[in-house]
Amino acid sequence: MPPVDRQPVPDMLRERSGVVREALGRLLTAPDDPSRDLYEAMRYMVLGGGKKLRPVLVLLAAEACGGTAEAALPAACAIEMVHTYSLIHDDLPAMDNDDLRHGKPSCHKAYGEAMAILAGDGLLTEAFAVLAWPGRDPAVAQRLVAELAEAAGPTGMVGGQVADLKAEREHLGDARLLETIHRRKTARMIEAAAAMGAIAAGASRHVERSLRAYGQHLGLAFQIADDILDAEGTTEALGKTAGKDAAAGKLTYVGCYGLAAARDRARVEAEGAMSALAGFGHAADVLRDLARFVVERTF
Amino acid sequence: MPPVDRQPVPDMLRERSGVVREALGRLLTAPDDPSRDLYEAMRYMVLGGGKKLRPVLVLLAAEACGGTAEAALPAACAIEMVHTYSLIHDDLPAMDNDDLRHGKPSCHKAYGEAMAILAGDGLLTEAFAVLAWPGRDPAVAQRLVAELAEAAGPTGMVGGQVADLKAEREHLGDARLLETIHRRKTARMIEAAAAMGAIAAGASRHVERSLRAYGQHLGLAFQIADDILDAEGTTEALGKTAGKDAAAGKLTYVGCYGLAAARDRARVEAEGAMSALAGFGHAADVLRDLARFVVERTF
Repeated sequence: MPPVDRQPVPDMLRERSGVVREALGRLLTAPDDPSRDLYEAMRYMVLGGGKKLRPVLVLLAAEACGGTAEAALPAACAIEMVHTYSLIHDDLPAMDNDDLRHGKPSCHKAYGEAMAILAGDGLLTEAFAVLAWPGRDPAVAQRLVAELAEAAGPTGMVGGQVADLKAEREHLGDARLLETIHRRKTARMIEAAAAMGAIAAGASRHVERSLRAYGQHLGLAFQIADDILDAEGTTEALGKTAGKDAAAGKLTYVGCYGLAAARDRARVEAEGAMSALAGFGHAADVLRDLARFVVERTF
Repeated sequence: MPPVDRQPVPDMLRERSGVVREALGRLLTAPDDPSRDLYEAMRYMVLGGGKKLRPVLVLLAAEACGGTAEAALPAACAIEMVHTYSLIHDDLPAMDNDDLRHGKPSCHKAYGEAMAILAGDGLLTEAFAVLAWPGRDPAVAQRLVAELAEAAGPTGMVGGQVADLKAEREHLGDARLLETIHRRKTARMIEAAAAMGAIAAGASRHVERSLRAYGQHLGLAFQIADDILDAEGTTEALGKTAGKDAAAGKLTYVGCYGLAAARDRARVEAEGAMSALAGFGHAADVLRDLARFVVERTF
């Protein structure tokens, strides 16, 4: 139980994600021209739902380093744009072919495939525009762009997605490939969220490294929890098609190790996340609550 | 006729594009892991063909400002990655559904749709990683990222593509929409190439503005010439399906104004490009040759 002066994690996530959502809505204001439809499709997905874990983590990491959430807000919006683009493209018929996202029709179901491809492309590009906005500290901007591009690119998220498709199509089941996929697809972006919070706050490299380690562990715990929820949850509760991973022959922690071992591993990763915060004292209490929450929701 | 000490434009383009191609090959070296297939698909498209007009223009613009091609090479590679991603996604079945690109099977024909979507995503993301590489001048990096993201994003190329699809599907034929599409889809990125050369060379805002104007005019001339070649050329000569714009009901300059008026307009834009270079003297001779060449190849 968190002490009385700390918000329960679901309330904290709701409040913080509201701040991020409002900023995203401002950044993606539709112009009055032929690209209006594109903005509608981008807004539909960015503002439509989801826990906003990555952008909230950017804000919390910045605060844990003594920075302000306000200074980290552009970085938070940028990482959420990139995460959302990846969901839009993952849902496409040629990829996971999923009709449902956040409890609503997925982007291509609502706006057609061509617009979904372009909405994804638009969000990915705009994320970098937000980070490089004139008037901000150039050295910080450069590091934020480098971090996000590396985490999301061919050696990160996109590479992980390729490995995931390969595993699914070739019915590969080995544990090493599973680790590669989850590290790149999910954990790398959650590590980037923690690192970007540190960078936006002007933290030292030492502090940044600790937050990176926290993000890696949290990211793996989160992905394993997601695998468990997919295996156990209902479509209604998830807001996306449940049991789909197993049906599609996806490589998951539950499929690879079984439910009990997957739960154990999630707990070990959450403990790893806690250890990484050893030097932060009370400044990182909310980050600790978050790591606990990620694992507890699977029980 | 250029004087004897200047290379003919086709030779210059061939030589300069070779330098860009070599640098791109180095940047996209495939790692020995499950993302190897992704790198193969990205390299297939980036190294496979095309005039490399945009990256060569980055190098030429940098030199016209007194900078070196070497310092501008990362920016040149980045804009070519973004241009290539746009071709890969444009060719997809849900978009233009084109089987041929640069005289070879388009990316999804060669590697499948899922890999083509991801190869595009990977190239777009990697472009920003290249611009934000550690060790370069942060202020230059910030401006290059901002320029490329704005030119390629929802208010630029992606927005133009949305307007293009809308015109095609709703059989819109008005000249104002045509102008919007071509300005955003093609001219904005060619303007960005010229501007990025100036930024990489550390040029003044005044010099950058002149090169921007040159790029805008050159970009429109280039797009009109492309429309003319599509209407008149053969599939073999183009390396992509000829006559496809008209067959698809695409809004083009030739379709909107007729061949003679399209040629006139291309010539007017090339003259606009020349005028923008008035202050540059001989430093911009190659840029002038390029503007002449773009229009002359349509006769």
